[in-house]
Amino acid sequence: MAYLNDHYLKLKAGYLFPEISRRVKMFCESNPEAAKRLIRCGIGDVTEPLPPAVIAAMHQAVDEMSHRETFHGYGPEQGYEWLRAAIAGNDFRDRGIEVADDEIFVSDGSKCDTGNILDILGGKNKIAISDPVYPVYVDTNVMAGHTGAANEAGAYAKLVYLPCTARNGFMPGPPKRHVDVVYLCSPNNPTGAAATRPQLEAWVNYALEHKAIILFDAAYEAYITDPALPHSIYEIPGARDCAIEFRSFSKNGGFTGARCAFTVVPKSLDAQTKSGEIKPLHPLWLRRMTTKFNGVSYVVQRGAEALYSSEGKAQVRALIEHYLVNAKALRQGAEKAGLRVFGGVNAPYLWVRAPKNITSWQVFDKILNEANVVITPGAGFGAKGEGFFRISAFNSRANAEEVARRLPTLKW
Amino acid sequence: MAYLNDHYLKLKAGYLFPEISRRVKMFCESNPEAAKRLIRCGIGDVTEPLPPAVIAAMHQAVDEMSHRETFHGYGPEQGYEWLRAAIAGNDFRDRGIEVADDEIFVSDGSKCDTGNILDILGGKNKIAISDPVYPVYVDTNVMAGHTGAANEAGAYAKLVYLPCTARNGFMPGPPKRHVDVVYLCSPNNPTGAAATRPQLEAWVNYALEHKAIILFDAAYEAYITDPALPHSIYEIPGARDCAIEFRSFSKNGGFTGARCAFTVVPKSLDAQTKSGEIKPLHPLWLRRMTTKFNGVSYVVQRGAEALYSSEGKAQVRALIEHYLVNAKALRQGAEKAGLRVFGGVNAPYLWVRAPKNITSWQVFDKILNEANVVITPGAGFGAKGEGFFRISAFNSRANAEEVARRLPTLKW
Repeated sequence: MAYLNDHYLKLKAGYLFPEISRRVKMFCESNPEAAKRLIRCGIGDVTEPLPPAVIAAMHQAVDEMSHRETFHGYGPEQGYEWLRAAIAGNDFRDRGIEVADDEIFVSDGSKCDTGNILDILGGKNKIAISDPVYPVYVDTNVMAGHTGAANEAGAYAKLVYLPCTARNGFMPGPPKRHVDVVYLCSPNNPTGAAATRPQLEAWVNYALEHKAIILFDAAYEAYITDPALPHSIYEIPGARDCAIEFRSFSKNGGFTGARCAFTVVPKSLDAQTKSGEIKPLHPLWLRRMTTKFNGVSYVVQRGAEALYSSEGKAQVRALIEHYLVNAKALRQGAEKAGLRVFGGVNAPYLWVRAPKNITSWQVFDKILNEANVVITPGAGFGAKGEGFFRISAFNSRANAEEVARRLPTLKW
Repeated sequence: MAYLNDHYLKLKAGYLFPEISRRVKMFCESNPEAAKRLIRCGIGDVTEPLPPAVIAAMHQAVDEMSHRETFHGYGPEQGYEWLRAAIAGNDFRDRGIEVADDEIFVSDGSKCDTGNILDILGGKNKIAISDPVYPVYVDTNVMAGHTGAANEAGAYAKLVYLPCTARNGFMPGPPKRHVDVVYLCSPNNPTGAAATRPQLEAWVNYALEHKAIILFDAAYEAYITDPALPHSIYEIPGARDCAIEFRSFSKNGGFTGARCAFTVVPKSLDAQTKSGEIKPLHPLWLRRMTTKFNGVSYVVQRGAEALYSSEGKAQVRALIEHYLVNAKALRQGAEKAGLRVFGGVNAPYLWVRAPKNITSWQVFDKILNEANVVITPGAGFGAKGEGFFRISAFNSRANAEEVARRLPTLKW
């Protein structure tokens, strides 16, 4: 009989967001009146429409697809050259960061990329993740067989967990022990913390010393407001030899439903075979993408390109500003409620300490039932997320302000 | 030092189509005049524009994305319910085939799905593929570590190759030995052969007896002209217990650049753990898709839905007819050239025997140089593809007719 991948059976419960959806659906079915005033600050999904520059570019691209002379069939799997050039030029070289066009791999999402990157890595790597963490990093390692079973707290054997605490500003430094691969996310989902230059320098130095690989998730870089904070790991000298960077148009251009992202794999990044032979990873990722992927929709790539026009850039700035002002309102509301709030300054997420002796799923249920607001329980992001919850600033201004008003009305 | 996935180093040369691109590019640079009359019948990429019904639906969806009231962010990873219902209803239930909406998983391509499906299968399966074969089936198994090294003919150790020959009508029957997983593609890429009902019954019976899984690639089912031939593996009794079916909008709706496909995973399909516990695969694929994928672009899903409107269906039929008439012209041209031709009746591909003592890459170079036509060398699809080449009917009528005129002018 055919065999299944046993590692999947180690996965705990459902993926976080489907579980939230299930609870919200149940609540709405049981409370149709309260459901009408429901406000979702749970999943980090944008709410504002695509920028007009993107809409215009997508309409034009759809029109091109309607005439045989301008129709586009299969494109290059790794993305059209014009989009790769726009990305490498605008996001990196214009900011003094060395990244070549062909080091950019356009994809349909950072979630996919952070999972798929494991395809080109071996099974023997010691892998470190922060705790709390974006669950996809963990689950995809479980699926790939890089972990043992989970304990009662949801922690998987063999993974190295780096606790994020108020004490370290929710941005852990390198461990004393050796690891081969580490996931860093800055600005951080879920904690909203953003790594400083010295923090990233410490990580790059560690990675160079240990010949480790940093998987740097910068999906939220556009939310950085502090000019001293790095937007890219490649701002740190040496990072081209030890880091892969993931970026997305989901949270800057509002592409969560349009689907476009990219990954930077520097040609100078090496890894070793089991027998110790050293090889660059760039050709492996290229082979992976050309073999297992067929490129992002032409219409969507044209939309992404439009984000780099001067109108597109201004429209993106306005979108980011919109969500950051929401974050500020939510911070004020949560503080007025007497809660301890982190994040929300260089990130669209607030990381809020739960009142004493209340679990984060209890907080979730209480806020859902009494304020009719959906948040994300910290425990969903890892054991050290227990005692916290995440509020997303992705919403309309009116909703963000309404949530800020409702939070202080809760009695804990 | 971090480890790479050693299995990638077993992969032979480049993926077939990038290698063809490289040779065509070299030819065009060295022969700018001849390049002007170049006609591509190599890669199976559609040439005709998207159907008007799709264009209208995509424009409307882009407009929806421009207003916050109708904006769509993250959708369900496995596809919107309205698209899954349209697929299951039109492609299956209306034809008397039992498939539930939630057995449909919408994705961005069958190439991706046929590779990604290995994520949920174990490493101990004995895997059978036909030879010649769509290279992605092989390469993704190599990447996943399911094979040994390749021999000089390009055949990988541990895979079971099922030779497709003129004698078996390029559709091999089940082997005498046990295998756990078998890839079947009908209508076939590259040979253009389509499996008969008795042939598929033999495979389903084999799979049920061996508790094997059939990975059935039906990306070209719309090209079936013979009413006696099955369009879906699920037309065969018992197939819901042993088969996963891959479908695509690439070749019927012309979505190669738009990107949308789907996979059917019946809830009654089981596999075993290493310890022999039997589990359904449906929840594993759902977990895989929700964790490692973020859904197809909303705009593209609306475009795919429009293929099922009455106008959309008529427009798809016209597209298919266009390419099938091309195939007929190409068949006549190749036969006039004295070549032995297979396929091209229930498929958009012709499988042509190379003149004696000429390798298929020599055929490729000769047809490129002397007729300025790009074909695909059979050897690119496997050892048994040597001595054959594939001509794709995806082209304008004028180009197909021109190729039909040029082929007989070649002196072998």
